[in-house]
Amino acid sequence: MTSLASLSAETAIVGVGQTPFTRGTDLTTLGLHLEAAHEAIADAGLEPADIDGVMPNELAGTVAEDFILELGLPNLAFSSTIRTGGASFVSAIQSAALAVAAGIATNVLLVAGRRGYSAQRVSKTSEGAIPPHPVMRQIDEFERPFGNTVAAQWFAQAARRHMHEYGTTSEDFGHIAVAVRGHANLNPRALMHEKTMTLEQHQASPFISDPLRLFDCSLETDGATAIVITSAERARDARKPGLPILGVGEGHGDPPTSITQKRDLTRIEGLERAAARAYAMAGLGPDAIDCAQIYDGFTWIVLASLEACGFCGPGEGGGFVRDGRIALGGALPVNTSGGLLSEGHCSGANLVSEAVRQLRREVEPARQVADCERVLVTGEGDFHEGAALILGAPE
Amino acid sequence: MTSLASLSAETAIVGVGQTPFTRGTDLTTLGLHLEAAHEAIADAGLEPADIDGVMPNELAGTVAEDFILELGLPNLAFSSTIRTGGASFVSAIQSAALAVAAGIATNVLLVAGRRGYSAQRVSKTSEGAIPPHPVMRQIDEFERPFGNTVAAQWFAQAARRHMHEYGTTSEDFGHIAVAVRGHANLNPRALMHEKTMTLEQHQASPFISDPLRLFDCSLETDGATAIVITSAERARDARKPGLPILGVGEGHGDPPTSITQKRDLTRIEGLERAAARAYAMAGLGPDAIDCAQIYDGFTWIVLASLEACGFCGPGEGGGFVRDGRIALGGALPVNTSGGLLSEGHCSGANLVSEAVRQLRREVEPARQVADCERVLVTGEGDFHEGAALILGAPE
Repeated sequence: MTSLASLSAETAIVGVGQTPFTRGTDLTTLGLHLEAAHEAIADAGLEPADIDGVMPNELAGTVAEDFILELGLPNLAFSSTIRTGGASFVSAIQSAALAVAAGIATNVLLVAGRRGYSAQRVSKTSEGAIPPHPVMRQIDEFERPFGNTVAAQWFAQAARRHMHEYGTTSEDFGHIAVAVRGHANLNPRALMHEKTMTLEQHQASPFISDPLRLFDCSLETDGATAIVITSAERARDARKPGLPILGVGEGHGDPPTSITQKRDLTRIEGLERAAARAYAMAGLGPDAIDCAQIYDGFTWIVLASLEACGFCGPGEGGGFVRDGRIALGGALPVNTSGGLLSEGHCSGANLVSEAVRQLRREVEPARQVADCERVLVTGEGDFHEGAALILGAPE
Repeated sequence: MTSLASLSAETAIVGVGQTPFTRGTDLTTLGLHLEAAHEAIADAGLEPADIDGVMPNELAGTVAEDFILELGLPNLAFSSTIRTGGASFVSAIQSAALAVAAGIATNVLLVAGRRGYSAQRVSKTSEGAIPPHPVMRQIDEFERPFGNTVAAQWFAQAARRHMHEYGTTSEDFGHIAVAVRGHANLNPRALMHEKTMTLEQHQASPFISDPLRLFDCSLETDGATAIVITSAERARDARKPGLPILGVGEGHGDPPTSITQKRDLTRIEGLERAAARAYAMAGLGPDAIDCAQIYDGFTWIVLASLEACGFCGPGEGGGFVRDGRIALGGALPVNTSGGLLSEGHCSGANLVSEAVRQLRREVEPARQVADCERVLVTGEGDFHEGAALILGAPE
């Protein structure tokens, strides 16, 4: 029997590219993708024609043929698309690693990002966002008519339930927002680089959907991120050291319902399963993780994800994030770039590029996690779906 | 270095399911998919809860969560979607095989099919069919305004060019239609089971788009097909013998343009590349194939696919299909179920189920290919994209 572990460290990330995160752009979504893709390919020391696998991102509406046409890819042998919302980019790494490990493709390009400010503003409406998903059908039929319309409302209910069950407070969410903002203040790429935030300011920020305040919500930005995955063997000769994919996993909730119909609103079951699979592949547990890049569409998602990934027990997230534990210098620095809350919202892909830069020692010195050897990255989609990646230091 | 060959015979198809093909249905598209899925899972001797990977078909608009919700899949660890039109189902087999071979998933369910008669009639319009594809953008902008609207028109231009370049005739296309119809006449599942066709009838059938006649076009039917893929090792203990996936490959044309802008209208470049990859993985060539299930959206596609798969040289397809060579009893029986032309159009998935049944010796005796040990199945999408599968007899 083949074991999950056989995929561990067989493949590596060798290139990253990222557009600036802005509020407003003259580029199309595909234009943003191409800018990030060119940068990632060059970062890997490759030419576009070396790319023979592409995983486009569904949320952006691009397809493999866009990249064949625009980049010039004469030899594409692998393409597929993951359809799990904010978990898609990390799940796509699993598929890309499979294709590379088996020799189906040599260099796989993954791209995500959207015009989250100029076109697809999640604060405005979710209508038609993920058309065929049963979750959206449930929302469209039973919830939208009563005004339960946008993501902030949905996650507010999960946050409130967590508060009710476990005594979690708005200040706990605030600790996450403040820690992540502090990281953004050290990151010139971050949209919120210049804007500091105190816990008092978080607490004074208006409710978007009680109990979620303005500063509990991620940014709406335009931008894209790309990475290139190749084999661990080829990565040794790459322009920059490759980062081995030690573990990766995908998980889904069952049943996949809208958030109001979940059996337990306080949990992200898909991420629990994904993290368990990634740990099993890597042969590691939460203790081995030096730094975590957690999908942070809302602060509550970070809190629930820390629980789902076993950094603390169910309901203990509120206590875990206090006392600077998740800030740089703490026991588990989280979202060291500023994440989706304060760097930019790139469908989660910028969490992966930050993991790469931390492991390469390419970030600003004040932002570098000391002795950073293993980074966990998570994705979360549609309330239930999860994905987890454990990336290692160069071999 | 991992070689392509390492994936050969590591995985197997262990279950197939198929709804009847009809003109009209009371079921939704998802309902058709579930009927086929239940049959495939039972055919594999499994319960729905044993399925931990799902690959839905984009053309049908279903997503993995539909199957989690409707079948009850508590443990899904792998899902992805291929977006290459009629090549998607065979390409999806590649991704499923990768996931199973690496131990990411144990049993992967693949489903395709649509309400091709009751809802998505390709003879009516292609508008919005594959929205984000650059090919469709090109058609929408430059060709649709001039009336170049439906698939029959597009492929008519390819067929006409083949005739111009190589002296191929409408009768050559007719030999394909007649051979495949003859197979349907032996297959009670085929929509055209009762309707015979002579070459004279083919030649007398009206032009849909010159030179393609009515009988050069595939059927518009409602229906779905599903398969289950597991490891070769587990397949040995399955309810029925597993069919090893000896080779599988995906290929794309470059550049991916609409058919009128292709560099060479007479070739399906993506399929040439896909077939070469599948042969390389299997360590076999065209000579080793006992029977071929060729994507037959139009008769011309069969002719060009036989060339792309190396059964004859470029331009030699017209000569190849004469003299009964592709009929049962000939050197290379093609589309022994009646295919999309005469059994039903199920986004190509029924070509895979027919390959399984031939190798299992489950077809009617008159339709059984003698000594059938290896079957080639192809997919074709969007003029350029191709996929090829080589399935072997039970080990």
